[in-house]
Amino acid sequence: MTTTLTDENRRKLRRVSTATLTTALFKRGFRNQFIQDVRPLAPLNESVVGEAFTLRYIPAREDLDKLSAFEGTSHPQRRAIEDCPPGHVMVIDSRKDPRAASAGGILVSRLMQRGVAGIVTDGGFRDSPEIAEMGFPAYHNRPSAPTNLIRHHALDINAPIACGDVAVYPGDIVVGDSEGVCIIPAHLANEIAPEAYEQTAYEDFVAERVRGGQGIFGLYPANDETKAAFAQWRPGWS
Amino acid sequence: MTTTLTDENRRKLRRVSTATLTTALFKRGFRNQFIQDVRPLAPLNESVVGEAFTLRYIPAREDLDKLSAFEGTSHPQRRAIEDCPPGHVMVIDSRKDPRAASAGGILVSRLMQRGVAGIVTDGGFRDSPEIAEMGFPAYHNRPSAPTNLIRHHALDINAPIACGDVAVYPGDIVVGDSEGVCIIPAHLANEIAPEAYEQTAYEDFVAERVRGGQGIFGLYPANDETKAAFAQWRPGWS
Amino acid sequence: MTTTLTDENRRKLRRVSTATLTTALFKRGFRNQFIQDVRPLAPLNESVVGEAFTLRYIPAREDLDKLSAFEGTSHPQRRAIEDCPPGHVMVIDSRKDPRAASAGGILVSRLMQRGVAGIVTDGGFRDSPEIAEMGFPAYHNRPSAPTNLIRHHALDINAPIACGDVAVYPGDIVVGDSEGVCIIPAHLANEIAPEAYEQTAYEDFVAERVRGGQGIFGLYPANDETKAAFAQWRPGWS
Amino acid sequence: MTTTLTDENRRKLRRVSTATLTTALFKRGFRNQFIQDVRPLAPLNESVVGEAFTLRYIPAREDLDKLSAFEGTSHPQRRAIEDCPPGHVMVIDSRKDPRAASAGGILVSRLMQRGVAGIVTDGGFRDSPEIAEMGFPAYHNRPSAPTNLIRHHALDINAPIACGDVAVYPGDIVVGDSEGVCIIPAHLANEIAPEAYEQTAYEDFVAERVRGGQGIFGLYPANDETKAAFAQWRPGWS
Amino acid sequence: MTTTLTDENRRKLRRVSTATLTTALFKRGFRNQFIQDVRPLAPLNESVVGEAFTLRYIPAREDLDKLSAFEGTSHPQRRAIEDCPPGHVMVIDSRKDPRAASAGGILVSRLMQRGVAGIVTDGGFRDSPEIAEMGFPAYHNRPSAPTNLIRHHALDINAPIACGDVAVYPGDIVVGDSEGVCIIPAHLANEIAPEAYEQTAYEDFVAERVRGGQGIFGLYPANDETKAAFAQWRPGWS
Amino acid sequence: MTTTLTDENRRKLRRVSTATLTTALFKRGFRNQFIQDVRPLAPLNESVVGEAFTLRYIPAREDLDKLSAFEGTSHPQRRAIEDCPPGHVMVIDSRKDPRAASAGGILVSRLMQRGVAGIVTDGGFRDSPEIAEMGFPAYHNRPSAPTNLIRHHALDINAPIACGDVAVYPGDIVVGDSEGVCIIPAHLANEIAPEAYEQTAYEDFVAERVRGGQGIFGLYPANDETKAAFAQWRPGWS
Repeated sequence: MTTTLTDENRRKLRRVSTATLTTALFKRGFRNQFIQDVRPLAPLNESVVGEAFTLRYIPAREDLDKLSAFEGTSHPQRRAIEDCPPGHVMVIDSRKDPRAASAGGILVSRLMQRGVAGIVTDGGFRDSPEIAEMGFPAYHNRPSAPTNLIRHHALDINAPIACGDVAVYPGDIVVGDSEGVCIIPAHLANEIAPEAYEQTAYEDFVAERVRGGQGIFGLYPANDETKAAFAQWRPGWS
Repeated sequence: MTTTLTDENRRKLRRVSTATLTTALFKRGFRNQFIQDVRPLAPLNESVVGEAFTLRYIPAREDLDKLSAFEGTSHPQRRAIEDCPPGHVMVIDSRKDPRAASAGGILVSRLMQRGVAGIVTDGGFRDSPEIAEMGFPAYHNRPSAPTNLIRHHALDINAPIACGDVAVYPGDIVVGDSEGVCIIPAHLANEIAPEAYEQTAYEDFVAERVRGGQGIFGLYPANDETKAAFAQWRPGWS
Repeated sequence: MTTTLTDENRRKLRRVSTATLTTALFKRGFRNQFIQDVRPLAPLNESVVGEAFTLRYIPAREDLDKLSAFEGTSHPQRRAIEDCPPGHVMVIDSRKDPRAASAGGILVSRLMQRGVAGIVTDGGFRDSPEIAEMGFPAYHNRPSAPTNLIRHHALDINAPIACGDVAVYPGDIVVGDSEGVCIIPAHLANEIAPEAYEQTAYEDFVAERVRGGQGIFGLYPANDETKAAFAQWRPGWS
Repeated sequence: MTTTLTDENRRKLRRVSTATLTTALFKRGFRNQFIQDVRPLAPLNESVVGEAFTLRYIPAREDLDKLSAFEGTSHPQRRAIEDCPPGHVMVIDSRKDPRAASAGGILVSRLMQRGVAGIVTDGGFRDSPEIAEMGFPAYHNRPSAPTNLIRHHALDINAPIACGDVAVYPGDIVVGDSEGVCIIPAHLANEIAPEAYEQTAYEDFVAERVRGGQGIFGLYPANDETKAAFAQWRPGWS
Repeated sequence: MTTTLTDENRRKLRRVSTATLTTALFKRGFRNQFIQDVRPLAPLNESVVGEAFTLRYIPAREDLDKLSAFEGTSHPQRRAIEDCPPGHVMVIDSRKDPRAASAGGILVSRLMQRGVAGIVTDGGFRDSPEIAEMGFPAYHNRPSAPTNLIRHHALDINAPIACGDVAVYPGDIVVGDSEGVCIIPAHLANEIAPEAYEQTAYEDFVAERVRGGQGIFGLYPANDETKAAFAQWRPGWS
Repeated sequence: MTTTLTDENRRKLRRVSTATLTTALFKRGFRNQFIQDVRPLAPLNESVVGEAFTLRYIPAREDLDKLSAFEGTSHPQRRAIEDCPPGHVMVIDSRKDPRAASAGGILVSRLMQRGVAGIVTDGGFRDSPEIAEMGFPAYHNRPSAPTNLIRHHALDINAPIACGDVAVYPGDIVVGDSEGVCIIPAHLANEIAPEAYEQTAYEDFVAERVRGGQGIFGLYPANDETKAAFAQWRPGWS
């Protein structure tokens, strides 16, 4: 049922903002695809785009969540870091609880080395100042130094999750910009990417007109005259 | 690794309060086994006791969560209602979101008919006035009329979940009284039940003494003299 | 554009629960018509039904909101109490702030004397124990003794408002039961009332069947066999 | 600087509601004397009145807050229970954190035996169903089974505290009714008590008039005619 | 009743911080004129000053708030963008809900072109990275990509509103700096501006003294000796 | 019972992150030593380290908390600013309430002049843009212009307090970095400092290896081979 995102559409989505995407999704009846209350640790130059690879945490329990849990190769958090496919975005369900870290600098650095596209949690990262300097797209609620095990027990890899009040299914297309993160249901990504790309062209046109002094009526949204003007302007945009 | 709760211990736990259980768990290092911010729809005469049978919700998505989802026999919420074993307690992870219902009167009535022991959600129930009159142990955050599908998508049956900031593993022993709900890790239930039962005897003794005018020093906790007095008193309690 | 609610439909809505109404509204695409986080001060025997008559508060300002503001006949809170038409429900936008009262026992008693059907605030009432004993449908977030002027400045009478995160337009049909309050857009009330009434009949049928031991598959929602059985049962219900 | 509350005024305050008191305090410039978001475990027949005797908690620390801390006679929580003077109201600063108990049934029972007038916390009580049946004025945010030591470290006895966002100084007059709890600064209690008592008489008069069909303009607040009518009615009230 | 802010006072207020203004207002009994929990999208070099021009949102309703609502010239959000007078500050009541945008980059750019002085919402802006780079004073709670219509229905233009728990009346003087936004009731602005300007001079003097090693006693607040020293220092400040 | 932090260990802690410290504390059973939801006003180059010197606020009361309270030399806030020993960190219990300022630019500047090491509040600072430019370690929840007296009454100097849900005892070692603030119980600081310093060396080694392409299994945590490699690498680190 899922269609693979084409390279062309992946490229187009990198030019598109999450704001534009929420409108395209709203047109199709989706009202809740923007992850609430997360922010990038550093601004991005272009949008990050990738398939969702998920990790689910439940609350920690004192007899299970000790430092020894990280030994070996089976702890789901560590496993996920090594298994997340390149080009994907890791999305973590931390139950909106930033009181202990979802992950830290070493794990995020490893993800970056492995070619993963980005990481999102509705909790918080530790070592957040280092992560902010890595040039790697990372989103959280707020910095959180306490070690993961104090609050979180890693459980499921790549199951459907909640993140920031949004449903995230593995394979959904995650798009993040300097504003935040939007989730495109997998089967809609190839349909929405070119539409949102064209809308981005239009909004650049509008922004140019507004800076030139034009009012918004008839411009945003467009009337017929504006549509014609845009058709003339469009070829120069890419 | 899990030991089955014996009938004797199940009987004992029905006499025990969640307050007494949290202390027994704290002695063993557990600080977070009381489900936060849920309450019974009606007071209970004795504690409800049963194995946890869990249901997990993630946020709804408009294209998946339509009324037609309830048709057939595969919707996980409906499936769970018919599959929850008698004597168990259904525990629902509603992500602490009571803005739409976790379940309603008809489903709760069905659980009751099937011999299920109780139901707990960290969201809310609809038809809450009817549920309150059923004489069935039910716990939620607050009443919530909106239909389940508006906010929730039922996903996993009997996987480990979060409920009210507590980790709940299938088979854990759920104990609820008029105060709230406590989760006993499965492997500790047979150890804790007799200890908490004896502590209940002791607290009844203390309560009697306090009502008789005795001060709390030396009584609560007990000094040697008090321990001796209790030893004499104890046989009359059951 | 608004159709007056017929007497027949008003009568029918008194038999209908807010839970049933949210489903009828959800079928039509409305996801947000249940006022969040308010509760009745006392349980109701049948649903209260009436047209919304609104009052809007903004935050108080110390130079404007003194006790002398209540003198005369122009203070909008006092004005609204005397002007709310019989049979209507007063709905107050208190910005979800229960730290000072939205109204108190004397004003609520006056509303009751005047034949008003009920009162709803997303803040709190003072004199709440007395209001609870009046037998008058009243809904709030929690009791709040501090006088209105400490936090609230009454402004608009009968303008569209927010109440508990729901849009309320004057003339919308307010339905409240022991669970909470649902807002039916005015133009839909005559359409929804008979449908919800019939759904109530069906749910009573289902409840009877479930109490008799029947499972929910095929029953809720109904398959063809169940629909036929209900058709036979229906004439005995009213 | 503090004046002792006279017996006559103590008696008068038992007839007065917290709503009436907040207005008397507001007249004198006090906007924040009602403890926010606490409620009585059981309704009261008349207001509880007593001097504040305070207890302050800070967050627990694992090496200090073990069960053994309750042994001996020096733990501040236990000390406070035995030291709170009869007729006073114990007020606990639990930092608005109900995730672990502020106190439980045995300690509250001991307070009651000792003639203490009531207890207030901005956290929660454990054994709340038993406390609710004691007939002892007790106020909290919500029930909380977990033992005190999990979250709270008892520190100061009878120092100024915060409770529910209100400043409480030892010796302030605490008045609680079925609605909640109001704090009267100690030096104002003898001034406010008779004034609030008379206002209560007036509000009973108004309530009677409103039930008889009179409108609120000129009645609440009173114009000269109403003042005269009240002067005639007043002698029959006590 | 409103006095127009003089050019001289407007110039003076640009040198004044919101911190200094809240103190001047507190002296006059105002405790609640700082908009809570909003922040500038980019730091400001001098304070923004302008008359409040308001916009009020209520919650969206699915049948009214569709993308087609933006067509034509009557949608209140679009209308307000074109109607807000140059030099004024647009202040939006978004009910403290940042889950959908209050406005976006194109509309804010248009405001800037039109000579409007700034924009404030207690919700969030979309296209926030672009807005941050415009050099236009803009304040919100947090970035929010989802289109306005998902949560908000624009209703009133230039009516009194709540913004961040503060009452804002059209024509009030809005002052914003890198810390946040303060609302000066219109009739007080010409009185407060010169006083706050002089206080700013004094605080610059104090800051210089503190950097030079002087202690705060006698300096802040000033004793007579300090007042004399300041009188000598003052002429060099502007 | 408190051991003085040695100069060597103070130096070592300046190289250590709060993330590393929370793990060292967790090993010893401490789960709650990171101050929740505060952030530095400006990033730090190395960690700030100092003994806690505390200040406690309770809610303001209108008759006590007037601007005249700041006159003289006895106001506890002003007193604390002059009395906090050089090298210490002032930690303020503002009850997590940032609606009025905990302190402002002049007082913070004075602390800096006096050689105090830093300041932490779980409320907010006014003049926050100036404080951010001082190069002085300062942590708060969010900027807050309103003058201290509107919400806060300064009470205790150097008593145990709550700050951001953490217990802070005078003399505890406060360590802050660009991520946040961690509290080390005084008696553990000399034990934890060298351990955390060595762990920092190890994490630098790990980070280097991860940037070089090594996976995390066997590396973090270390297996025997990795331990040997680190032993060889360690001498080059300082």
